[in-house]
Amino acid sequence: MRATIFRGPYDVRVEDVPEPVIQRPTDAVVRILRACVCGSDLWAYRGETARKPGQRIGHEFLGTVEAVGAEVTGVRVGDLVVVPFVWSDGVCDYCREGLTTSCEHGGFWGAVGHDGGQGEAARVPYADGTLVKLPQEAASDDRLLAALLSLSDVMGTGHHAALGAGVRPGATVAVVGDGAVGLCAVLAAKRLGAEQIIALGRHGDRTDIARRFGATDVVAERGEAAVEAVRALTRGQGAHAVVEAVGTEQSMRTALDITRDGGAVGYVGVPHGSATGVDLSTMFARNIALRGGVAPVRAYIPDLLPDVLDGRLDPSPVFDLTVGIEGVPGGYQAMDERTALKVLVTNG
Amino acid sequence: MRATIFRGPYDVRVEDVPEPVIQRPTDAVVRILRACVCGSDLWAYRGETARKPGQRIGHEFLGTVEAVGAEVTGVRVGDLVVVPFVWSDGVCDYCREGLTTSCEHGGFWGAVGHDGGQGEAARVPYADGTLVKLPQEAASDDRLLAALLSLSDVMGTGHHAALGAGVRPGATVAVVGDGAVGLCAVLAAKRLGAEQIIALGRHGDRTDIARRFGATDVVAERGEAAVEAVRALTRGQGAHAVVEAVGTEQSMRTALDITRDGGAVGYVGVPHGSATGVDLSTMFARNIALRGGVAPVRAYIPDLLPDVLDGRLDPSPVFDLTVGIEGVPGGYQAMDERTALKVLVTNG
Repeated sequence: MRATIFRGPYDVRVEDVPEPVIQRPTDAVVRILRACVCGSDLWAYRGETARKPGQRIGHEFLGTVEAVGAEVTGVRVGDLVVVPFVWSDGVCDYCREGLTTSCEHGGFWGAVGHDGGQGEAARVPYADGTLVKLPQEAASDDRLLAALLSLSDVMGTGHHAALGAGVRPGATVAVVGDGAVGLCAVLAAKRLGAEQIIALGRHGDRTDIARRFGATDVVAERGEAAVEAVRALTRGQGAHAVVEAVGTEQSMRTALDITRDGGAVGYVGVPHGSATGVDLSTMFARNIALRGGVAPVRAYIPDLLPDVLDGRLDPSPVFDLTVGIEGVPGGYQAMDERTALKVLVTNG
Repeated sequence: MRATIFRGPYDVRVEDVPEPVIQRPTDAVVRILRACVCGSDLWAYRGETARKPGQRIGHEFLGTVEAVGAEVTGVRVGDLVVVPFVWSDGVCDYCREGLTTSCEHGGFWGAVGHDGGQGEAARVPYADGTLVKLPQEAASDDRLLAALLSLSDVMGTGHHAALGAGVRPGATVAVVGDGAVGLCAVLAAKRLGAEQIIALGRHGDRTDIARRFGATDVVAERGEAAVEAVRALTRGQGAHAVVEAVGTEQSMRTALDITRDGGAVGYVGVPHGSATGVDLSTMFARNIALRGGVAPVRAYIPDLLPDVLDGRLDPSPVFDLTVGIEGVPGGYQAMDERTALKVLVTNG
C-alpha cells in the first residue's frame, strides 16, 4: 500500500510500504477513507520536533474495519470507524476516567514500528478501546465525513481547550490562534454557551470562519496591541476563559495577558521548550489558572458525535484543500506556506 | 504607638510611630490584639523581595475597632474583628465574585503610607469591605483567638491551595511544604473530604502537627526520592491534588512530578522569579493543571469561620512561639532560623 513517510525536514514522501496485518488479538486493520494534515505535523515537517527519517506520519483518520483480531468484540469487519490520535486500551484507570491520553498501553500514530494516518491503511492496537463506530450511511456523505474526521483530533482538541479554559454559559472567551484547533475551540465555546467569543487572528479567510463558527469579535493585532484590543472589548478586564491554540512563547504570553483575574487559560498548542511564555508571578498575582494538554479526544467522541451527526456541530469548513494520497507532500507545503488552513486527504 | 519597621535585610525594629487616625470616611482604626509573622514576611526580612527601609511590616491581625469613618456601617467601635491580609472594597466586580485580592481599590498592609499588622494599631481602608466581625466572647479565649487569627492568612491560604488543587471527597492529596500554610492545607484537605493526605516535610515537630491535622502519610525525602516515595504510596500514579506551599523552583518541580496525570497543583507559595520549576511540556503530556495564587481569604472567612468557632477547624497549633510587640524582631530571627514554626504576637 501507499503511505506517507517522514524522510527529513521539509521532506515527506508517499512510498510503498507493506500492508498492515493483525499482530495481536486486540488489533484491527482499518482501510483509511479520510485523513488529514495537522498543525502539529508541521512541527515535525519543519524539523522542530524529533522524528527519525523513515517514520510514518499522520494521526487523524477514519475508515472501514478490514480485519479484527480474535479478542476484538466492539467492532466488526465492514464497520465505519473514527480513530483518535492516540490509541488506548479502554480499560485502565485513566481510560475509565476519560484521560485516554494517559492510557498505560497508549501510543501515538507514527511511532517507530507503527502505522501513520496518512496512508491507505493502518493497524490499530487496542481496537476495542480506540475505535468508535460511525453510522454506515455517513460513508457516502463527503461533508459529514469531513466533520466526523475532525473528531479524531481538532474538534476534540478545541473542546478540550474550551473545557480547560473553563468556558461556561454566559462567559467571555478569547481564542489565541486561528488554525484549525483555534477555530474548533470557537465552535466548542459557542456550543458550551459562551456569550462573547473573541477570535485573535490575522488571516481574513480564517477569521471569517471564526465568525461563522460563533466568534462575536475578531482581533487582528498581535502582542501588546492585541492585549489592549481584548481589554477594550471586555471593560478593561480581559476574558474569563482563554484558549491558547498555538504553542509559542508569544501566544502563551498573550493568552495570560488577556485573561481576566481569576480566569483560566486552556492550552492545547503543543509547547515548544519548557515553560515558554509562562509568567508564574503574573499568574500568582492575578489567580490565573493554566489547564490543558494533549486532548483525550477518545473520551469526548460520545459527547460530540451526536451533535456532529445531526449537523448542530459542523467543523468541516476547517478543511479548505483536498488531495489524494499522492498529494500529501503538496498538502504539507501548502499548510507550511499558509496557503491552506487544513488539508483533507481522501482515499478512493 | 509601637510598630514594626523594616530597616533592611535581617533588620526589623519596633519603633515609635504616630497613632493611626481616620483619613477617609470609609476607614476604621483597629487596636490590634493578636498578630503574627508570616513565612512570606521572611522573604522581605531576608531581602529577597523589594521593600524600602522604613516600610511597616506584618499583614495578619485581629483586634478591636477603635474608630470608624462617617460612611462605615458594617462595624462599630468596640467590635472584635479579623483583618484579611489584603484590604478590599467589597463592592467591585471582583469582590462580589469573591476574588477580593483583585479588588480595584485593594492593597497590602505595609505598603508605603500604610500601616502594618505587627504594631499596636492600624488604619484599615475600606473597613466595610475588609473587616469581618467576630463574636465578642472570643476576645477572652487565647486558643480561639489564635485560631481566628489564622483566618487573616494562613488558614484561608491553605484552603485556597486545596481548592486550587481540586481536593474532593475521596481524593489523594499531597502537600509540599511543612510551614504553617502547608499545615493549614492539610487541615483544609481533611475538611474537604480527602481520603489520603501525604505531607512532605523534614521537620519532625511539623510533620507531627501534620498528622494531628489529618495527614495519613509523611514523606521526609526531597527531590527525586520524594517523588518515588509519593509514587510508592499512590500505586505508582501520584496524587490527584497537590498543594505547593513553598514557592521555590524545587518545590514546584516536586509538586508537578508527584501529581497524577489529569490532576492539579494548587500553588500558594509566593513564586520567586518567573516560571521557576514549571515544566510546560510535562504538564502538557500529563494534563496537569496549575491553579492558585494570592488567596482571597476575605471571601473564605464566612465559610471557614463557623467551623473555627465551633472547634471543628483548629489551626492554632501552627503557633509555637508567642512574643509581645517588643519581641517581634526575635520572632523573625526564630522563624528565619527555623527554631519557630510561626510566631504569635500578643498585645495586652
